[in-house]
Amino acid sequence: MRAVGAALAAAAVSAVLLAVAAWRRARPVREVLFFPSRPCCIEALLAEAAEPGAPVRPCPCPLPSGDTALSRLVRRLLSARRSLDLCVFAFSCPQLARTVQVLHHRGVRVRLVTDAQYMGMHGSQIGRLRHAGIQVRHDQHSGYMHHKFAIVDRRMLITGSLNWTTQAIQSNRENVLVVEDAEYVKAFQDEFERIWEEYNPANYKFFPKGSK
Amino acid sequence: MRAVGAALAAAAVSAVLLAVAAWRRARPVREVLFFPSRPCCIEALLAEAAEPGAPVRPCPCPLPSGDTALSRLVRRLLSARRSLDLCVFAFSCPQLARTVQVLHHRGVRVRLVTDAQYMGMHGSQIGRLRHAGIQVRHDQHSGYMHHKFAIVDRRMLITGSLNWTTQAIQSNRENVLVVEDAEYVKAFQDEFERIWEEYNPANYKFFPKGSK
Repeated sequence: MRAVGAALAAAAVSAVLLAVAAWRRARPVREVLFFPSRPCCIEALLAEAAEPGAPVRPCPCPLPSGDTALSRLVRRLLSARRSLDLCVFAFSCPQLARTVQVLHHRGVRVRLVTDAQYMGMHGSQIGRLRHAGIQVRHDQHSGYMHHKFAIVDRRMLITGSLNWTTQAIQSNRENVLVVEDAEYVKAFQDEFERIWEEYNPANYKFFPKGSK
Repeated sequence: MRAVGAALAAAAVSAVLLAVAAWRRARPVREVLFFPSRPCCIEALLAEAAEPGAPVRPCPCPLPSGDTALSRLVRRLLSARRSLDLCVFAFSCPQLARTVQVLHHRGVRVRLVTDAQYMGMHGSQIGRLRHAGIQVRHDQHSGYMHHKFAIVDRRMLITGSLNWTTQAIQSNRENVLVVEDAEYVKAFQDEFERIWEEYNPANYKFFPKGSK
Protein backbone atom coordinates (compact mmCIF):
# COMPACT_ATOMS: atom_id res chain seq x y z
CA MET A 1 0.00 0.00 0.00
CA ARG A 2 2.83 2.34 0.95
CA ALA A 3 4.66 1.70 -2.33
CA VAL A 4 1.50 2.43 -4.32
CA GLY A 5 1.02 5.68 -2.39
CA ALA A 6 4.60 6.76 -3.02
CA ALA A 7 4.31 5.92 -6.73
CA LEU A 8 1.08 7.91 -6.98
CA ALA A 9 2.68 10.89 -5.21
CA ALA A 10 5.70 10.73 -7.53
CA ALA A 11 3.42 10.59 -10.57
CA ALA A 12 1.47 13.61 -9.31
CA VAL A 13 4.68 15.61 -8.75
CA SER A 14 5.91 14.69 -12.26
CA ALA A 15 2.60 15.77 -13.77
CA VAL A 16 2.77 19.13 -11.99
CA LEU A 17 6.40 19.68 -13.09
CA LEU A 18 5.54 18.79 -16.70
CA ALA A 19 2.55 21.16 -16.62
CA VAL A 20 4.73 24.00 -15.27
CA ALA A 21 7.36 23.33 -17.97
CA ALA A 22 4.69 23.32 -20.69
CA TRP A 23 3.20 26.56 -19.35
CA ARG A 24 6.66 28.16 -19.34
CA ARG A 25 7.26 27.06 -22.94
CA ALA A 26 3.86 28.32 -24.05
CA ARG A 27 4.09 31.65 -22.21
CA PRO A 28 4.92 34.43 -24.69
CA VAL A 29 8.34 36.03 -24.27
CA ARG A 30 8.20 39.45 -22.60
CA GLU A 31 11.52 41.05 -21.80
CA VAL A 32 13.06 44.49 -21.46
CA LEU A 33 16.81 44.91 -21.86
CA PHE A 34 18.59 48.06 -20.75
CA PHE A 35 22.01 49.13 -21.92
CA PRO A 36 24.92 49.86 -21.49
CA SER A 37 25.79 46.21 -21.22
CA ARG A 38 28.95 44.96 -19.56
CA PRO A 39 31.38 43.79 -22.26
CA CYS A 40 31.10 40.03 -22.60
CA CYS A 41 32.29 37.12 -24.69
CA ILE A 42 29.61 35.47 -26.82
CA GLU A 43 31.87 32.83 -28.44
CA ALA A 44 30.28 29.96 -26.53
CA LEU A 45 26.79 31.08 -27.61
CA LEU A 46 27.86 31.35 -31.25
CA ALA A 47 29.70 28.01 -31.22
CA GLU A 48 26.70 26.22 -29.71
CA ALA A 49 24.39 27.85 -32.27
CA ALA A 50 26.70 27.01 -35.18
CA GLU A 51 27.11 23.39 -34.19
CA PRO A 52 24.56 22.31 -31.56
CA GLY A 53 25.85 19.62 -29.24
CA ALA A 54 29.49 19.90 -30.32
CA PRO A 55 32.01 20.27 -27.48
CA VAL A 56 32.62 23.98 -26.86
CA ARG A 57 36.29 24.95 -26.63
CA PRO A 58 36.92 27.65 -24.01
CA CYS A 59 37.57 31.06 -25.57
CA PRO A 60 41.02 32.49 -24.79
CA CYS A 61 39.74 36.09 -24.61
CA PRO A 62 39.74 37.78 -21.17
CA LEU A 63 36.06 38.82 -21.26
CA PRO A 64 33.54 37.15 -18.95
CA SER A 65 30.79 35.11 -20.64
CA GLY A 66 28.07 35.72 -18.04
CA ASP A 67 24.50 36.95 -18.36
CA THR A 68 24.39 40.50 -19.80
CA ALA A 69 21.98 42.57 -21.86
CA LEU A 70 24.09 41.80 -24.95
CA SER A 71 24.18 38.03 -24.33
CA ARG A 72 20.42 38.05 -23.80
CA LEU A 73 19.90 39.93 -27.07
CA VAL A 74 22.17 37.44 -28.88
CA ARG A 75 20.29 34.47 -27.39
CA ARG A 76 16.98 35.87 -28.63
CA LEU A 77 18.39 36.36 -32.13
CA LEU A 78 19.94 32.88 -32.17
CA SER A 79 16.55 31.37 -31.36
CA ALA A 80 15.60 31.99 -35.04
CA ARG A 81 14.86 28.79 -36.94
CA ARG A 82 13.35 30.00 -40.20
CA SER A 83 13.68 33.77 -40.70
CA LEU A 84 15.27 36.93 -39.36
CA ASP A 85 14.04 40.25 -40.72
CA LEU A 86 16.27 43.14 -39.69
CA CYS A 87 15.71 46.86 -40.04
CA VAL A 88 18.70 48.60 -38.48
CA PHE A 89 19.89 52.17 -39.00
CA ALA A 90 23.51 51.68 -37.87
CA PHE A 91 25.13 48.24 -37.89
CA SER A 92 28.79 48.25 -36.93
CA CYS A 93 28.98 45.77 -34.02
CA PRO A 94 31.15 42.80 -35.10
CA GLN A 95 29.61 40.52 -32.46
CA LEU A 96 26.09 41.07 -33.81
CA ALA A 97 27.36 40.70 -37.40
CA ARG A 98 28.79 37.29 -36.46
CA THR A 99 25.47 36.37 -34.84
CA VAL A 100 23.62 37.17 -38.06
CA GLN A 101 26.21 35.24 -40.10
CA VAL A 102 25.80 32.13 -37.91
CA LEU A 103 22.06 32.23 -38.57
CA HIS A 104 22.61 32.70 -42.30
CA HIS A 105 25.00 29.72 -42.42
CA ARG A 106 22.48 27.64 -40.49
CA GLY A 107 19.95 28.21 -43.28
CA VAL A 108 17.83 30.91 -41.61
CA ARG A 109 16.52 33.34 -44.22
CA VAL A 110 18.04 36.69 -43.26
CA ARG A 111 16.81 39.93 -44.86
CA LEU A 112 18.45 43.18 -43.80
CA VAL A 113 17.28 46.74 -44.39
CA THR A 114 19.62 49.57 -43.50
CA ASP A 115 20.28 53.26 -44.03
CA ALA A 116 22.18 54.36 -47.12
CA GLN A 117 24.11 57.17 -45.42
CA TYR A 118 25.30 55.10 -42.48
CA MET A 119 25.97 51.96 -44.54
CA GLY A 120 29.21 53.27 -46.00
CA MET A 121 30.67 54.65 -42.78
CA HIS A 122 33.87 53.35 -41.24
CA GLY A 123 33.26 50.18 -39.25
CA SER A 124 29.93 49.37 -40.89
CA GLN A 125 29.36 45.60 -41.06
CA ILE A 126 27.07 45.78 -44.09
CA GLY A 127 29.81 45.00 -46.63
CA ARG A 128 30.90 41.94 -44.65
CA LEU A 129 27.31 40.68 -44.42
CA ARG A 130 26.70 41.21 -48.14
CA HIS A 131 29.98 39.43 -48.85
CA ALA A 132 28.69 36.49 -46.80
CA GLY A 133 25.68 36.30 -49.12
CA ILE A 134 23.07 38.04 -46.97
CA GLN A 135 20.40 40.05 -48.78
CA VAL A 136 20.66 43.76 -47.95
CA ARG A 137 18.47 46.62 -49.13
CA HIS A 138 18.74 50.32 -48.32
CA ASP A 139 16.84 53.56 -48.78
CA GLN A 140 17.43 56.02 -51.56
CA HIS A 141 16.10 59.22 -50.01
CA SER A 142 17.38 62.01 -47.80
CA GLY A 143 15.54 61.04 -44.58
CA TYR A 144 17.05 58.33 -42.40
CA MET A 145 15.91 54.71 -42.29
CA HIS A 146 16.05 55.06 -38.51
CA HIS A 147 14.27 51.89 -37.33
CA LYS A 148 16.14 49.48 -35.07
CA PHE A 149 14.08 46.32 -34.98
CA ALA A 150 14.35 42.61 -35.68
CA ILE A 151 11.64 40.02 -36.22
CA VAL A 152 12.51 36.41 -35.40
CA ASP A 153 10.53 33.70 -37.22
CA ARG A 154 7.68 36.21 -37.87
CA ARG A 155 6.85 35.59 -34.21
CA MET A 156 9.06 37.66 -31.92
CA LEU A 157 9.68 41.41 -32.16
CA ILE A 158 12.91 42.92 -30.83
CA THR A 159 12.76 46.72 -30.96
CA GLY A 160 13.96 49.83 -29.18
CA SER A 161 16.43 52.68 -29.24
CA LEU A 162 19.55 50.52 -29.69
CA ASN A 163 21.57 50.82 -32.86
CA TRP A 164 23.71 47.77 -33.48
CA THR A 165 27.01 49.47 -32.66
CA THR A 166 29.57 48.62 -30.00
CA GLN A 167 29.38 52.24 -28.77
CA ALA A 168 25.62 51.95 -28.21
CA ILE A 169 25.91 48.54 -26.52
CA GLN A 170 28.77 49.40 -24.19
CA SER A 171 28.42 53.15 -23.56
CA ASN A 172 24.89 54.45 -24.16
CA ARG A 173 21.68 54.35 -22.14
CA GLU A 174 19.46 52.32 -24.43
CA ASN A 175 16.43 50.06 -24.30
CA VAL A 176 15.26 46.99 -26.20
CA LEU A 177 11.85 45.40 -25.86
CA VAL A 178 11.31 41.75 -26.68
CA VAL A 179 7.66 41.14 -27.48
CA GLU A 180 6.03 37.91 -28.56
CA ASP A 181 2.63 39.36 -29.36
CA ALA A 182 0.87 38.72 -32.67
CA GLU A 183 -0.65 42.23 -32.93
CA TYR A 184 2.63 44.14 -32.46
CA VAL A 185 4.61 41.64 -34.55
CA LYS A 186 2.14 41.95 -37.44
CA ALA A 187 2.38 45.75 -37.46
CA PHE A 188 6.19 45.61 -37.67
CA GLN A 189 6.20 42.71 -40.16
CA ASP A 190 3.89 44.71 -42.43
CA GLU A 191 6.20 47.74 -42.11
CA PHE A 192 9.17 45.52 -42.95
CA GLU A 193 7.51 44.12 -46.07
CA ARG A 194 6.53 47.66 -47.20
CA ILE A 195 10.12 48.86 -46.81
CA TRP A 196 11.61 45.70 -48.35
CA GLU A 197 9.48 46.23 -51.46
CA GLU A 198 10.04 49.99 -51.58
CA TYR A 199 13.83 49.52 -51.35
CA ASN A 200 13.89 46.82 -54.05
CA PRO A 201 16.82 47.81 -56.30
CA ALA A 202 14.50 47.34 -59.29
CA ASN A 203 12.73 50.49 -58.06
CA TYR A 204 15.86 52.63 -57.72
CA LYS A 205 15.83 55.82 -59.69
CA PHE A 206 18.99 57.01 -61.42
CA PHE A 207 19.52 60.62 -62.26
CA PRO A 208 22.06 61.35 -65.01
CA LYS A 209 24.61 64.04 -64.17
CA GLY A 210 23.31 67.52 -64.82
CA SER A 211 19.64 66.53 -64.60
CA LYS A 212 17.40 68.30 -62.08
CA MET B 1 -47.72 46.24 -26.55
CA ARG B 2 -45.81 47.48 -29.57
CA ALA B 3 -44.61 50.57 -27.70
CA VAL B 4 -43.40 48.44 -24.78
CA GLY B 5 -41.55 46.17 -27.21
CA ALA B 6 -39.87 49.14 -28.91
CA ALA B 7 -38.89 50.63 -25.55
CA LEU B 8 -37.42 47.30 -24.42
CA ALA B 9 -35.46 46.98 -27.69
CA ALA B 10 -34.14 50.53 -27.33
CA ALA B 11 -33.10 49.82 -23.74
CA ALA B 12 -31.32 46.64 -24.82
CA VAL B 13 -29.45 48.49 -27.59
CA SER B 14 -28.43 51.24 -25.14
CA ALA B 15 -27.18 48.65 -22.66
CA VAL B 16 -25.09 46.96 -25.36
CA LEU B 17 -23.64 50.29 -26.53
CA LEU B 18 -22.78 51.27 -22.94
CA ALA B 19 -21.13 47.89 -22.34
CA VAL B 20 -19.07 48.26 -25.54
CA ALA B 21 -18.02 51.79 -24.52
CA ALA B 22 -17.03 50.57 -21.03
CA TRP B 23 -15.06 47.67 -22.54
CA ARG B 24 -13.28 50.07 -24.89
CA ARG B 25 -12.38 52.35 -21.98
CA ALA B 26 -11.15 49.43 -19.90
CA ARG B 27 -9.18 47.79 -22.72
CA PRO B 28 -5.50 48.65 -22.40
CA VAL B 29 -4.14 50.92 -25.12
CA ARG B 30 -2.07 49.07 -27.74
CA GLU B 31 -0.91 51.11 -30.69
CA VAL B 32 1.96 51.25 -33.16
CA LEU B 33 2.75 54.50 -34.95
CA PHE B 34 4.98 54.61 -38.00
CA PHE B 35 6.71 57.69 -39.32
CA PRO B 36 7.29 59.79 -41.42
CA SER B 37 4.07 61.53 -40.55
CA ARG B 38 2.32 63.94 -42.89
CA PRO B 39 2.86 67.50 -41.61
CA CYS B 40 -0.22 68.54 -39.65
CA CYS B 41 -1.58 71.34 -37.49
CA ILE B 42 -2.08 70.39 -33.82
CA GLU B 43 -3.37 73.81 -32.67
CA ALA B 44 -6.91 72.54 -32.11
CA LEU B 45 -5.61 69.65 -29.97
CA LEU B 46 -3.45 71.99 -27.89
CA ALA B 47 -6.23 74.57 -27.46
CA GLU B 48 -8.70 71.91 -26.34
CA ALA B 49 -6.13 70.50 -23.90
CA ALA B 50 -5.23 73.95 -22.53
CA GLU B 51 -8.84 74.97 -21.99
CA PRO B 52 -11.22 72.03 -22.23
CA GLY B 53 -14.66 72.98 -23.52
CA ALA B 54 -13.65 76.48 -24.70
CA PRO B 55 -14.63 77.32 -28.28
CA VAL B 56 -11.71 76.47 -30.58
CA ARG B 57 -10.79 79.23 -33.02
CA PRO B 58 -9.79 77.89 -36.42
CA CYS B 59 -6.03 78.06 -37.02
CA PRO B 60 -4.99 80.28 -39.95
CA CYS B 61 -2.07 77.99 -40.94
CA PRO B 62 -2.38 76.07 -44.20
CA LEU B 63 -1.64 72.62 -42.70
CA PRO B 64 -4.40 70.01 -42.45
CA SER B 65 -5.45 68.97 -38.95
CA GLY B 66 -6.40 65.40 -39.75
CA ASP B 67 -5.41 62.08 -38.21
CA THR B 68 -1.65 61.50 -38.53
CA ALA B 69 1.05 59.63 -36.61
CA LEU B 70 2.08 62.97 -35.05
CA SER B 71 -1.46 63.94 -34.00
CA ARG B 72 -1.93 60.47 -32.47
CA LEU B 73 1.32 60.82 -30.53
CA VAL B 74 0.24 64.27 -29.30
CA ARG B 75 -3.18 62.95 -28.23
CA ARG B 76 -1.54 60.17 -26.19
CA LEU B 77 0.74 62.69 -24.47
CA LEU B 78 -2.14 65.10 -23.81
CA SER B 79 -4.04 62.33 -22.05
CA ALA B 80 -1.69 62.83 -19.05
CA ARG B 81 -3.51 63.97 -15.92
CA ARG B 82 -0.89 63.66 -13.19
CA SER B 83 2.61 62.98 -14.54
CA LEU B 84 4.74 62.83 -17.65
CA ASP B 85 8.21 61.33 -17.38
CA LEU B 86 10.29 61.95 -20.50
CA CYS B 87 13.62 60.46 -21.48
CA VAL B 88 14.50 61.86 -24.91
CA PHE B 89 17.90 61.99 -26.59
CA ALA B 90 17.11 64.79 -29.08
CA PHE B 91 14.27 67.24 -28.48
CA SER B 92 14.00 69.99 -31.07
CA CYS B 93 10.41 69.70 -32.34
CA PRO B 94 8.53 72.92 -31.41
CA GLN B 95 5.13 71.19 -31.66
CA LEU B 96 6.09 68.57 -29.07
CA ALA B 97 7.68 71.24 -26.86
CA ARG B 98 4.37 73.12 -26.89
CA THR B 99 2.54 69.90 -26.05
CA VAL B 100 4.76 69.39 -23.00
CA GLN B 101 4.30 73.05 -21.98
CA VAL B 102 0.51 72.74 -22.14
CA LEU B 103 0.70 69.77 -19.77
CA HIS B 104 3.04 71.65 -17.43
CA HIS B 105 0.68 74.65 -17.33
CA ARG B 106 -2.22 72.33 -16.65
CA GLY B 107 -0.47 71.12 -13.48
CA VAL B 108 0.87 67.81 -14.77
CA ARG B 109 4.22 67.02 -13.13
CA VAL B 110 6.69 66.90 -16.03
CA ARG B 111 10.20 65.52 -15.54
CA LEU B 112 12.55 65.50 -18.51
CA VAL B 113 15.83 63.65 -18.96
CA THR B 114 17.95 64.43 -21.98
CA ASP B 115 21.42 64.08 -23.46
CA ALA B 116 24.05 66.65 -22.53
CA GLN B 117 25.71 66.75 -25.98
CA TYR B 118 22.50 67.18 -27.95
CA MET B 119 20.90 69.57 -25.44
CA GLY B 120 22.98 72.56 -26.53
CA MET B 121 22.60 72.06 -30.27
CA HIS B 122 20.88 74.57 -32.53
CA GLY B 123 17.11 74.19 -32.41
CA SER B 124 17.05 72.26 -29.14
CA GLN B 125 13.87 72.98 -27.15
CA ILE B 126 15.45 72.21 -23.77
CA GLY B 127 16.23 75.84 -22.94
CA ARG B 128 12.66 76.90 -23.71
CA LEU B 129 11.25 74.13 -21.54
CA ARG B 130 13.57 74.97 -18.64
CA HIS B 131 12.60 78.62 -19.04
CA ALA B 132 8.95 77.56 -18.70
CA GLY B 133 9.79 75.98 -15.34
CA ILE B 134 10.03 72.34 -16.35
CA GLN B 135 12.54 70.18 -14.46
CA VAL B 136 15.30 68.93 -16.75
CA ARG B 137 18.23 66.66 -15.93
CA HIS B 138 21.01 65.43 -18.21
CA ASP B 139 23.90 63.00 -18.24
CA GLN B 140 27.47 63.90 -17.46
CA HIS B 141 29.35 61.13 -19.26
CA SER B 142 30.69 60.48 -22.73
CA GLY B 143 28.11 57.87 -23.83
CA TYR B 144 24.76 59.08 -25.13
CA MET B 145 21.52 59.16 -23.14
CA HIS B 146 19.89 57.62 -26.22
CA HIS B 147 16.47 56.57 -24.88
CA LYS B 148 13.36 57.98 -26.53
CA PHE B 149 10.48 57.15 -24.24
CA ALA B 150 7.67 58.80 -22.32
CA ILE B 151 5.56 57.48 -19.46
CA VAL B 152 2.11 58.98 -19.02
CA ASP B 153 0.60 58.87 -15.51
CA ARG B 154 2.91 55.93 -14.62
CA ARG B 155 0.46 53.90 -16.69
CA MET B 156 1.20 54.20 -20.40
CA LEU B 157 4.57 53.69 -22.09
CA ILE B 158 5.38 55.46 -25.36
CA THR B 159 8.70 54.23 -26.77
CA GLY B 160 10.53 53.56 -30.00
CA SER B 161 13.15 54.86 -32.41
CA LEU B 162 11.72 58.37 -32.76
CA ASN B 163 13.71 61.32 -31.53
CA TRP B 164 11.53 64.34 -30.89
CA THR B 165 12.76 66.32 -33.89
CA THR B 166 10.83 67.67 -36.86
CA GLN B 167 13.29 65.90 -39.19
CA ALA B 168 12.54 62.53 -37.56
CA ILE B 169 8.78 63.12 -37.58
CA GLN B 170 8.50 64.36 -41.15
CA SER B 171 11.37 62.64 -43.00
CA ASN B 172 12.59 59.46 -41.28
CA ARG B 173 11.29 55.91 -41.14
CA GLU B 174 10.58 55.56 -37.43
CA ASN B 175 8.38 53.61 -35.04
CA VAL B 176 6.65 54.33 -31.76
CA LEU B 177 4.91 51.73 -29.61
CA VAL B 178 2.17 52.74 -27.20
CA VAL B 179 1.84 50.11 -24.48
CA GLU B 180 -0.48 50.14 -21.50
CA ASP B 181 0.97 47.11 -19.75
CA ALA B 182 2.00 47.16 -16.10
CA GLU B 183 5.05 44.90 -16.58
CA TYR B 184 6.64 46.93 -19.38
CA VAL B 185 5.69 50.25 -17.78
CA LYS B 186 7.28 49.24 -14.48
CA ALA B 187 10.57 48.29 -16.16
CA PHE B 188 10.77 51.70 -17.88
CA GLN B 189 9.55 53.62 -14.81
CA ASP B 190 12.30 51.98 -12.75
CA GLU B 191 14.87 52.89 -15.42
CA PHE B 192 13.57 56.48 -15.40
CA GLU B 193 13.87 56.75 -11.60
CA ARG B 194 17.41 55.29 -11.71
CA ILE B 195 18.47 57.85 -14.34
CA TRP B 196 16.64 60.73 -12.64
CA GLU B 197 18.54 60.02 -9.44
CA GLU B 198 21.86 59.40 -11.18
CA TYR B 199 21.58 62.71 -13.08
CA ASN B 200 20.65 64.68 -9.98
CA PRO B 201 22.83 67.82 -10.17
CA ALA B 202 23.82 67.21 -6.54
CA ASN B 203 25.76 64.20 -7.88
CA TYR B 204 27.62 66.08 -10.64
CA LYS B 205 31.36 65.88 -10.46
CA PHE B 206 33.50 68.89 -11.30
CA PHE B 207 37.05 68.52 -12.45
CA PRO B 208 39.28 71.57 -12.08
CA LYS B 209 41.24 72.51 -15.20
CA GLY B 210 44.44 70.55 -15.56
CA SER B 211 43.31 67.66 -13.34
CA LYS B 212 43.32 64.15 -14.80
